[in-house]
Amino acid sequence: MAQLPTVIDVGRVAGVSRQTVSNVLNSPQLVKPATRAKVEAAIAELGYRPHASARRLRTRKSSTIGIRLDPMTNGISGSILDRFLHALTEQADARGLRVMLFTASDPADEIRQIRKLRDGADVDAFVLTSTFYGDPRTEWLIEANVPFVTFGRPWGIDDMNDPQHLWVDVDGFNGLRDATRHLVGQGLSRIAYLGWPSPSGTGDDRRRGWRAAMEATSLSVDELSALEIAAEDGVSQGRDALASLLSSGAAVDGVVCASDSLALGAVLAAPDGLPVIGYDNTPVASAIGLSSVEQPLDEVAAGALELLLGSTGSELVGWSNSSTDPRHRLVMPRLVVRERTAARLA
Amino acid sequence: MAQLPTVIDVGRVAGVSRQTVSNVLNSPQLVKPATRAKVEAAIAELGYRPHASARRLRTRKSSTIGIRLDPMTNGISGSILDRFLHALTEQADARGLRVMLFTASDPADEIRQIRKLRDGADVDAFVLTSTFYGDPRTEWLIEANVPFVTFGRPWGIDDMNDPQHLWVDVDGFNGLRDATRHLVGQGLSRIAYLGWPSPSGTGDDRRRGWRAAMEATSLSVDELSALEIAAEDGVSQGRDALASLLSSGAAVDGVVCASDSLALGAVLAAPDGLPVIGYDNTPVASAIGLSSVEQPLDEVAAGALELLLGSTGSELVGWSNSSTDPRHRLVMPRLVVRERTAARLA
Repeated sequence: MAQLPTVIDVGRVAGVSRQTVSNVLNSPQLVKPATRAKVEAAIAELGYRPHASARRLRTRKSSTIGIRLDPMTNGISGSILDRFLHALTEQADARGLRVMLFTASDPADEIRQIRKLRDGADVDAFVLTSTFYGDPRTEWLIEANVPFVTFGRPWGIDDMNDPQHLWVDVDGFNGLRDATRHLVGQGLSRIAYLGWPSPSGTGDDRRRGWRAAMEATSLSVDELSALEIAAEDGVSQGRDALASLLSSGAAVDGVVCASDSLALGAVLAAPDGLPVIGYDNTPVASAIGLSSVEQPLDEVAAGALELLLGSTGSELVGWSNSSTDPRHRLVMPRLVVRERTAARLA
Repeated sequence: MAQLPTVIDVGRVAGVSRQTVSNVLNSPQLVKPATRAKVEAAIAELGYRPHASARRLRTRKSSTIGIRLDPMTNGISGSILDRFLHALTEQADARGLRVMLFTASDPADEIRQIRKLRDGADVDAFVLTSTFYGDPRTEWLIEANVPFVTFGRPWGIDDMNDPQHLWVDVDGFNGLRDATRHLVGQGLSRIAYLGWPSPSGTGDDRRRGWRAAMEATSLSVDELSALEIAAEDGVSQGRDALASLLSSGAAVDGVVCASDSLALGAVLAAPDGLPVIGYDNTPVASAIGLSSVEQPLDEVAAGALELLLGSTGSELVGWSNSSTDPRHRLVMPRLVVRERTAARLA
């Protein structure tokens, strides 16, 4: 195994002093852009990563974590990220860390914002949400050596266990499998899955959970496919998708859904007594007595911070070459079973 | 009128140099705690307030606004503060400001957290939410000369127009009056008000709006009082309160509520077709087709920042002696009328 490159190697390749390299790493605002570019090119060329201790020195500055907050949508399941933010702020506070919010119009803009916050030494590490196929943000963060963790797996990359990508996620496969099994265990077999269009890392994972549980039934592949419906997330979209399935004459014993928004739509389209299970256990589910799969967000938030803090438990180190700390955490959701409220919303 | 005290006066009373006073104001972390205490005592004794320009110098440091984020409750109307946070972050971003989150277990703890963030020069100004009768936070902030604005009026103090207390609020009186008038305009007269127990600054204001609209009906004071019911905020509380009114045999033509949580409860208790109007226009209202009074949160957030930034529009000055800038903003809500979804949630 080759020796890891050092600051001195980087300085030699960039044609600058060791101190300049150190400045680029620790106080980039002090370095002229052209010099910084040379040093950054050398760092990329050599694959140099500062040791955790050096990075700790740098990151001791602000003890602050950055997270993007999107403009509000009026969705029901969208509130899951708000609930995550509450949990993250509380868990951060308990560890002496602060949470800084920023906004971004798209992933490229988010990268610009992250760079600005990093350069200003305002933020030590970032928590990313809503990861998606081919997400450019995480690749940039790894290249730029900015500590980060994602709530959500790096869907679509070859190696989801890439040690440079810290992530925490909730096991949606298990969540949907449990929800489906709950209905199958009641003697029901024709359980429809109301999910999102493919490809969707999160959605496809949940769909596979439903499929896995349905293997216990005697349904054929064709029968299963007929019970698999997809819609963009939303109440009316869910209502229309289930109404369309039912009006085609398909026999349906129950419905499991990828979100509470879709589930509320399904409830609005379903005949009396048809069991529906949602996902996210939102206040809406609680209010109307809808069974739903709950994501344990305190555990997700604690996991994200513990991965960032590493085994020292005190510094926002993020990923490091030398560390043998765990880099991923898959949290188990739990099914909350409720009786639907017997009242007419008409 | 007596001359306003100056930094020199403060230094004389505290027995320190003018520079030390300036350090306490601008870089308190550089000053020994005992000295700081002496200077702060002199500042309090003299009622000294730095000029806006001096404060601008101090506050130019972080361009960051602090706001407390409470642990998540599973409420429906509670999400209004999440939606405000989204709006605030977006509006702050548009003005080159950042938002820092912190948590606190109670008002006294919130004061401690604010002091820590102010002393560390991490945060220039604070946005407070959920103001209440006898709120100790605002008094402390004024005494400590920390720029702040509240989302919510300073209920219960003698002079709500105190220029030292910047606030933005939504006119709940008008919101409930409009909602009630909407039903009265349809020929209905026995409109019940389902609100919160007194005293509640916000709740009592909304109740007065309902009362004002009901003056157009021919109901007696006793009849009106019988239609006024109160419950702690929550779906089941709202359901039980309306069910109890209805089971007493009272004739009710419609219900206006202080929140969507109470309104959803009312819908669950109401006979088919009884009009119910909520407050906050939450995703739940939209999902079940409930009419509701909407708070224009973008306008509230923009107003809060504009008050903090003052007429210069570029610095977080907060309140200042010399300024003639507006100090309060009352934003008008609007009624969103919907047809309730014809579907049985049972």
